[in-house]
Amino acid sequence: MNNQLDALEEILLMGPGPSCVPPQVYTALSKPTIGHLDPQFIGIMDKIKSLLQGVMQTKNTLTIPMSGTGSSGMETCLVNLIEPGDKVLILINGVFGKRMEDLARRLGAQVDTLEFEWGTCVIPEQVKEQLGKKEYAIVAIVHAETSTGVCNPVEEISELLGEKESLFLVDAVTSLGGIPVKTDEWKVDAMFSGTQKCLSCPPGLAPVSFSAAAVDKIKARKTKVPNWYLDLTMIINYWEGSQRAYHHTAPINMLYGLYQALYNLMAEGLETVFDRHLDTHRALVSSLDSLGIKMLVDPDYRLPMLNAVIIPEGVDEARVRKQLLNEYKIEIGAGLGPLAGKIWRIGLMGHTARIENVERLTCALKKVLK
Amino acid sequence: MNNQLDALEEILLMGPGPSCVPPQVYTALSKPTIGHLDPQFIGIMDKIKSLLQGVMQTKNTLTIPMSGTGSSGMETCLVNLIEPGDKVLILINGVFGKRMEDLARRLGAQVDTLEFEWGTCVIPEQVKEQLGKKEYAIVAIVHAETSTGVCNPVEEISELLGEKESLFLVDAVTSLGGIPVKTDEWKVDAMFSGTQKCLSCPPGLAPVSFSAAAVDKIKARKTKVPNWYLDLTMIINYWEGSQRAYHHTAPINMLYGLYQALYNLMAEGLETVFDRHLDTHRALVSSLDSLGIKMLVDPDYRLPMLNAVIIPEGVDEARVRKQLLNEYKIEIGAGLGPLAGKIWRIGLMGHTARIENVERLTCALKKVLK
Repeated sequence: MNNQLDALEEILLMGPGPSCVPPQVYTALSKPTIGHLDPQFIGIMDKIKSLLQGVMQTKNTLTIPMSGTGSSGMETCLVNLIEPGDKVLILINGVFGKRMEDLARRLGAQVDTLEFEWGTCVIPEQVKEQLGKKEYAIVAIVHAETSTGVCNPVEEISELLGEKESLFLVDAVTSLGGIPVKTDEWKVDAMFSGTQKCLSCPPGLAPVSFSAAAVDKIKARKTKVPNWYLDLTMIINYWEGSQRAYHHTAPINMLYGLYQALYNLMAEGLETVFDRHLDTHRALVSSLDSLGIKMLVDPDYRLPMLNAVIIPEGVDEARVRKQLLNEYKIEIGAGLGPLAGKIWRIGLMGHTARIENVERLTCALKKVLK
Repeated sequence: MNNQLDALEEILLMGPGPSCVPPQVYTALSKPTIGHLDPQFIGIMDKIKSLLQGVMQTKNTLTIPMSGTGSSGMETCLVNLIEPGDKVLILINGVFGKRMEDLARRLGAQVDTLEFEWGTCVIPEQVKEQLGKKEYAIVAIVHAETSTGVCNPVEEISELLGEKESLFLVDAVTSLGGIPVKTDEWKVDAMFSGTQKCLSCPPGLAPVSFSAAAVDKIKARKTKVPNWYLDLTMIINYWEGSQRAYHHTAPINMLYGLYQALYNLMAEGLETVFDRHLDTHRALVSSLDSLGIKMLVDPDYRLPMLNAVIIPEGVDEARVRKQLLNEYKIEIGAGLGPLAGKIWRIGLMGHTARIENVERLTCALKKVLK
């Protein structure tokens, strides 16, 4: 029997995620599996929580990784916080805002949306107007829209919410670990992320963080959470307290990987990491410019780790991506939805955000576009 | 900063899961991460599906691993198949039957249960009587009750369902890869399992399989699946067909691990693997007997991979488990629910099911119980 893994070729991951994984994280992934109630493992869990608090810039006690990929983090936030009939406002300017809308409707929320053109950012004035019209239980926004490369003004939206009772929910899947994510300062009540973007761990876990107000809403639910696997009222008892109660078997080795990835990040230092993302981004923009390739997004709200670039006229975009992958072992991403065929998405996330990768891509692109 | 993983001590995993992981699976876990739409990865996904069909003894097309631990497999089956008001019968003789009841109620099903004493098996005559009283949309049973060590008569229940319209749902978390699980022959419509039991891969994925009738029920739903992350109507489009559509980012490295674990299993041969479990189980029973330790479960429906053993009178059970873990680096499991303090659960799952492990445990137990 032929083993498919023997032939596996390493790829430079410069798409919208997963990103490149550093060697220490691979080593961590293959450490011996131990029991999910082993005191050694409880020790690792506790460290993961405190490292996550550091990266998320929060003191929230309920700051843990959920046992699924980033989208399970979204589901965790919405399914625990929403009860049928809750009024929810979702700010949408890309795929991931739409995804929250889809799920919130499935959960029986009364959903309002404000939609903005893909490739532009959420406009605070319009949000302010809407907030003046209606009280919402939850207001949700995507910090870094992976589908468009836009950074939304989370801090400004937070200020608009001010003294309102609304819980503020932020998708930080692509932003966490690449740009500042100030959970407490921005008064975010529920935040979710993924491991395979700027944390540079393989996909498989979804860090989440909940404020005291959010935990109160969960505890005050009139109905059980309509989801067993992601029910925080039970999961809390596995991640907190002196007696850890079994809920589901935690994904041990993935958690080793996350621990190591967070450890790397904090050892390098958040500010240094953010600077590295910014520097690499600037180098990319300038290199692409020299090839005549322009950015989709206005510099004022451009993400460093997800670069939406306009496909030059007359170029067969799928051919270019295929050639980069097959001949140069570099992956970049295609556009989604209305941006399919119009943009490429070039990721500079976590371990990928290094100058040598920008150079390797630029050289390859130059040859492929000739 | 001190790295917690440097001090990690290897443990012989003889509890109710996770089980010991063979070296090739650790190697697989740390192979380079590639993109979830990379043709290399699609190739691996296709192999995983066909290997899973082999292990599950099914031709079901929809046979895939879900991106969560075993319990997410339970959630996948119930959340996709149940619509509010559906009549569901759940056969319960342990924790994992109760868990299905809990979730089915959250999903708005009309749930009936038949409960049997923990440590005994589901009694087909009582099921037959109940099936005569009412038509059910779904009948659910746990094949191997991990909380008690009982093997339920899945084949006999299947025969009772005969020509009925009910879908037959089986929890094969602990049975798959340790004893025969004949999905097609037993006319199972929905089956879920986990990776961390007899498949000997770390926890993190949930293989599931759905019959054509189950897929028809999902496709005929009047309401959207009230869960985005586990919605099979979308996930099918990532795992099947010529155009793979992105749903969520697959847990790439965990899937490498599962591929390798399934590969190992098929290379050894299903029958050889089942025999190995049985032989090791017999050796354990005989060794324990020589120490005066008796089994909880009747030999007729005893599981080979999960041995519920009665704690000898006057023994401080927590002290024994702690000493085994700390001094001998062996993990065994405690009892749950009504069996807490009454039994230990000794796992012989997958790579753990080797004679040398039985010997190591017996020697250690002899000393600890002195």
